[in-house]
Amino acid sequence: MDRNGVSVLQPIATETMQAGVLHGSRDVRFEAISRPTVAPGRVLLRVLRAGICGSDIHYYLHGYCGRFVPTRPFVLGHEFVATVAEIGDDVDSVFIGQRVAVNPAASCGHCEPCRTGRANLCDRVVMLGSASTTPPTDGAFAEYVVVPAQQCFAVPESMSDGDAAMLEPLSVALHAIRRAGNVAGCRVLVSGGGPIGLLTARAARALGAARVVVSEPAEVRRKLAIELAADTALDPRSDGFLQSAIVESEGGFDVVFEASGAAPAVRACLEVARRGATIVQIGTIGGNEVALPVNDLMVRELSFLGTFRYANEFAEALRLVASGRINFEGFVTATIPIEDLSLALECAAGNPEALKVHVVND
Amino acid sequence: MDRNGVSVLQPIATETMQAGVLHGSRDVRFEAISRPTVAPGRVLLRVLRAGICGSDIHYYLHGYCGRFVPTRPFVLGHEFVATVAEIGDDVDSVFIGQRVAVNPAASCGHCEPCRTGRANLCDRVVMLGSASTTPPTDGAFAEYVVVPAQQCFAVPESMSDGDAAMLEPLSVALHAIRRAGNVAGCRVLVSGGGPIGLLTARAARALGAARVVVSEPAEVRRKLAIELAADTALDPRSDGFLQSAIVESEGGFDVVFEASGAAPAVRACLEVARRGATIVQIGTIGGNEVALPVNDLMVRELSFLGTFRYANEFAEALRLVASGRINFEGFVTATIPIEDLSLALECAAGNPEALKVHVVND
Amino acid sequence: MDRNGVSVLQPIATETMQAGVLHGSRDVRFEAISRPTVAPGRVLLRVLRAGICGSDIHYYLHGYCGRFVPTRPFVLGHEFVATVAEIGDDVDSVFIGQRVAVNPAASCGHCEPCRTGRANLCDRVVMLGSASTTPPTDGAFAEYVVVPAQQCFAVPESMSDGDAAMLEPLSVALHAIRRAGNVAGCRVLVSGGGPIGLLTARAARALGAARVVVSEPAEVRRKLAIELAADTALDPRSDGFLQSAIVESEGGFDVVFEASGAAPAVRACLEVARRGATIVQIGTIGGNEVALPVNDLMVRELSFLGTFRYANEFAEALRLVASGRINFEGFVTATIPIEDLSLALECAAGNPEALKVHVVND
Amino acid sequence: MDRNGVSVLQPIATETMQAGVLHGSRDVRFEAISRPTVAPGRVLLRVLRAGICGSDIHYYLHGYCGRFVPTRPFVLGHEFVATVAEIGDDVDSVFIGQRVAVNPAASCGHCEPCRTGRANLCDRVVMLGSASTTPPTDGAFAEYVVVPAQQCFAVPESMSDGDAAMLEPLSVALHAIRRAGNVAGCRVLVSGGGPIGLLTARAARALGAARVVVSEPAEVRRKLAIELAADTALDPRSDGFLQSAIVESEGGFDVVFEASGAAPAVRACLEVARRGATIVQIGTIGGNEVALPVNDLMVRELSFLGTFRYANEFAEALRLVASGRINFEGFVTATIPIEDLSLALECAAGNPEALKVHVVND
Repeated sequence: MDRNGVSVLQPIATETMQAGVLHGSRDVRFEAISRPTVAPGRVLLRVLRAGICGSDIHYYLHGYCGRFVPTRPFVLGHEFVATVAEIGDDVDSVFIGQRVAVNPAASCGHCEPCRTGRANLCDRVVMLGSASTTPPTDGAFAEYVVVPAQQCFAVPESMSDGDAAMLEPLSVALHAIRRAGNVAGCRVLVSGGGPIGLLTARAARALGAARVVVSEPAEVRRKLAIELAADTALDPRSDGFLQSAIVESEGGFDVVFEASGAAPAVRACLEVARRGATIVQIGTIGGNEVALPVNDLMVRELSFLGTFRYANEFAEALRLVASGRINFEGFVTATIPIEDLSLALECAAGNPEALKVHVVND
Repeated sequence: MDRNGVSVLQPIATETMQAGVLHGSRDVRFEAISRPTVAPGRVLLRVLRAGICGSDIHYYLHGYCGRFVPTRPFVLGHEFVATVAEIGDDVDSVFIGQRVAVNPAASCGHCEPCRTGRANLCDRVVMLGSASTTPPTDGAFAEYVVVPAQQCFAVPESMSDGDAAMLEPLSVALHAIRRAGNVAGCRVLVSGGGPIGLLTARAARALGAARVVVSEPAEVRRKLAIELAADTALDPRSDGFLQSAIVESEGGFDVVFEASGAAPAVRACLEVARRGATIVQIGTIGGNEVALPVNDLMVRELSFLGTFRYANEFAEALRLVASGRINFEGFVTATIPIEDLSLALECAAGNPEALKVHVVND
Repeated sequence: MDRNGVSVLQPIATETMQAGVLHGSRDVRFEAISRPTVAPGRVLLRVLRAGICGSDIHYYLHGYCGRFVPTRPFVLGHEFVATVAEIGDDVDSVFIGQRVAVNPAASCGHCEPCRTGRANLCDRVVMLGSASTTPPTDGAFAEYVVVPAQQCFAVPESMSDGDAAMLEPLSVALHAIRRAGNVAGCRVLVSGGGPIGLLTARAARALGAARVVVSEPAEVRRKLAIELAADTALDPRSDGFLQSAIVESEGGFDVVFEASGAAPAVRACLEVARRGATIVQIGTIGGNEVALPVNDLMVRELSFLGTFRYANEFAEALRLVASGRINFEGFVTATIPIEDLSLALECAAGNPEALKVHVVND
Repeated sequence: MDRNGVSVLQPIATETMQAGVLHGSRDVRFEAISRPTVAPGRVLLRVLRAGICGSDIHYYLHGYCGRFVPTRPFVLGHEFVATVAEIGDDVDSVFIGQRVAVNPAASCGHCEPCRTGRANLCDRVVMLGSASTTPPTDGAFAEYVVVPAQQCFAVPESMSDGDAAMLEPLSVALHAIRRAGNVAGCRVLVSGGGPIGLLTARAARALGAARVVVSEPAEVRRKLAIELAADTALDPRSDGFLQSAIVESEGGFDVVFEASGAAPAVRACLEVARRGATIVQIGTIGGNEVALPVNDLMVRELSFLGTFRYANEFAEALRLVASGRINFEGFVTATIPIEDLSLALECAAGNPEALKVHVVND
């Protein structure tokens, strides 16, 4: 039995499938591998479309991601929509042929974090398309993938494949907002105009943020920010940045999302935060450490919060997109056949104009 | 000194103004009375436009409102926008000629509720246009009104008078939502399609409610509900209501706002609430008491919450309207010269198609 | 497979045990029945000691409990401490011979309530010693009982069996307090001086309630209240009750726990609550409905909250008792051999001086 | 008018009093100065007893405190109990002869922080005995002091002067705990065994922290920690510290209060915090900046929070001490006549065995 209570006996693979396998740094091969098989409580999904995440790019560029070093070649991809192809024993929550979006993070359901609504902190979580477990867990850049049935969410007919494949990154943004507590009526800064930054900006706006400012050094992304999500965008490298930020926020932001991962940006976020404000760190820092003005944080009673993936936001994301409260217009900047996965990864990695790149199974 | 620390010495009135004075049930006279005078910390405002609230209608129809019985004729009106005409000593937060919206509830700032962010529960609050104090406090259905300077909020040029006069009822809706905790991603029911119900529906939507259903017996208001705020509207008197409500909410609402004040509606709200849901009572009940299924509330772990006016939501309302996150399109169904105040009150009182009626000083 | 994913194939029982079986109203027979067998993920426990809960008394007196009507004779009992006698496959969290306290409510771990920290609202929960499932689930008034391993909590050596068997009702009290939000520094009323009321009072005190008042009509229980938990106790039937309550609370209670289940008490709780206060309903109402002053609740912005069992409080209860922050001195008023279960139930049911009655396996 | 709306016209001083005046670094002179006079809304208090705070020591040692540099000699002291000697106009909340504890931080009551329950972030706050305003505001190391009447809290007869003078630092501890959200049932670390650290430890315990560990390098203070507040005390400089901390907290602390102000301690606090934990910075850092592992904070979803003074905790502190939930046994290590203020300051500054030093007017 594996850690989620389901047998991991691997039956002899009788069938193969095509998959984009990561063999090392910048070495992804679209090749035939064994098609995974269902087990009790699990379903075999045929992938329709999958998005490329920042962590996929890290794995692709370096062959690993932070402290997660794969022990064998594996398949990336965890933002996706699929069709149910086969169901294991004891599955009654989905049916064959159903279109589903998948929460790729399967937590145990019984530990202290799981019981307190913080399943993202479960230390037995199994993440699809990730080397956070040993061996790594194959993901969705493939024809097929197997997942626990309870991770599948039925997608309404009216929702496009493209939107359904965005529910996972939207969940990340919604969780960051939940960490902040509430953005309704707030003056919000998003530091960093990448895909997660702009999704957070758009989600914050849909959840009632009264003013949304994006700070981003690249002009092309500032333009995108204003088109997609922000009331205005500022260049954090410009001379008047701090002053502009204070003006735009009427004296300081109530909530700040730091999504750039740049150490100077983290420090700037604390400076432009209003007394009593909340800063949520959502971007990965190169080098981990940042010198922070702890006394200022103390006397101004700031809250500096980490945010990690999402806990229960997947269903919420689905509801918000299904009802049209949040849409992803403008976010998917390229759609590429899955057999060209290497191309898609290069496109996502190297292009400031690219936001989200999707690969599709025809 | 009055209870807010400002002198109430009444200097001899040397000037008069026109005002709509409530003399008794359905007896409002537009007549000349003494123009109020400023005092330290206070400002004289020239009213531009004022909205008619449900409590104004109660006072108008009955001569009193619940337990608030006026001890002398007085001027109603507490939803308004005005121009600063004169400023008292020690006022530096506004200037003459400035256009301002006014939070009509002046709390003491120092009692336990005030210190804990619940100024609406201050028992020394002075409410404009209300008989909750003795003598009653004159309100805004007049040429001029005097208010503490700190109750005034500068209105940006881009905001219309009509929108500015809606900030007060919007604050009521925002406070009800705050009482519920959060509506982002939630399935929300608003029971009752009157002005406050529909404002709450619209605000809930702007703050990220994933689905907003209005229940309302009058067909004309169900139509309005869908035009103005709701994803759908249900007739609570129809046979299939409970079943439809459960279907529309995928098994029960996360948050319910009871804005109708009808006892059967309160009970229905508890029935269509999901386990663990929150029901916020925002509508006044005729007769006060309602028989409630307390055991069901207990085992389903419901939260049944009162909401009263607003605490700190006025500034938030202003920000949300200024940035366009919330607008009031379709809410003001009549605009009437203030000298026809009686007509305006009759219009607001007797007409199911009327939502908000505004009176204007020319 | 049953609803928690574990096989319910019943192997042929080769052994029997003694158990107190409920056959009907006031008909509990201590008799030999099949000893339950372990399954993967489950453990066989030898019961050391078990407490009698109010719901056990309801089942005993009436043969059923509210809407829960057993479809066959079954074994009551869900507050207990035991020794691990046998472990099923895939169990590594406990070992044979270990002394454990048991959270008797096994939730699914994957539904929306479970994922949001509200496992008590899981609609697939299986409760030991309860007819809330069909067939009923046998409980702990027996020599042996089988439970999922993840429901077991290791009991430190320093903790007595008596204290360990109190962790379940303490969890109920802690959850009620969590529902209230916080009692630190608060003026707290507990309405009803029964076991749950007094446990709630004691827990509130241990969690920093500044003043704890118990209201209780029976003099013997008012005395107990003061001995065990309260700063003072009031008779809700006395003439000066409301006035005394207001004086004792300096103007109204911040938090009220209604644990009596008496309709007049519910109404009194709303009256003695301070503006903005929270009332938590923890006692079952005979007849379900209570006429409540909904307008008063609204304008005074009260919060009237249901509370049901407990979510994640079991581990917290264990920590608080292990460290001595909460003890149960004076709460267990009788300890009776399990073969005299009928006597123990009669004792618990009929005796106002009885608080908690424990049955023990020798 | 001053910023709190009360006239600051200074009538000609006709009387003098003795006061401990800070003239510069280590230069406090007990000398005769003008006795302050009441004004409307204010009261003249005769100081009974006052405690020495860490900030008083900073002013004493350096002549200033951080960025607060006095523009004239002034009187320190803000933790005190006093008797009402004279009352200004419009004061009806206290009476002459009454014994009162004083919240020394007078906030405006009307700005956004004040209205949202965060009066400690009011930027118009006037702090007694502080150079945070210009000119500095005289404090309580004197025979008399004048304060706004609304800052005075009646002290019950049963409460000693010593306990009443501790309500202010207790408020600081309570606010830090409130910032953490809740400590009930939690595993708590307090980093630093000085007066505020140990008060926080004791308060956390009184508010239901299940386990309280103090880390402190000085052995004498570790002993004090165990005597006064902690379940155990660890030396953060010892080799096995991290491992011991993990063991003592069963895998990491839920809540950490950093009260030492040492940069390595801040970093250690993040290391011994459990996933999802909260770290509250309550101690002032020498040098302001600390390099923090921001990625770890992010992926472990930590909350790193500043805390500053107190908002509404003064009344709560009074209630908790009045009812005996919190006492200060062992905290006041020296009581010295006010004329020996210099001696008292030296004693508080230089002595690791000193916790709180009080000066008394005979």
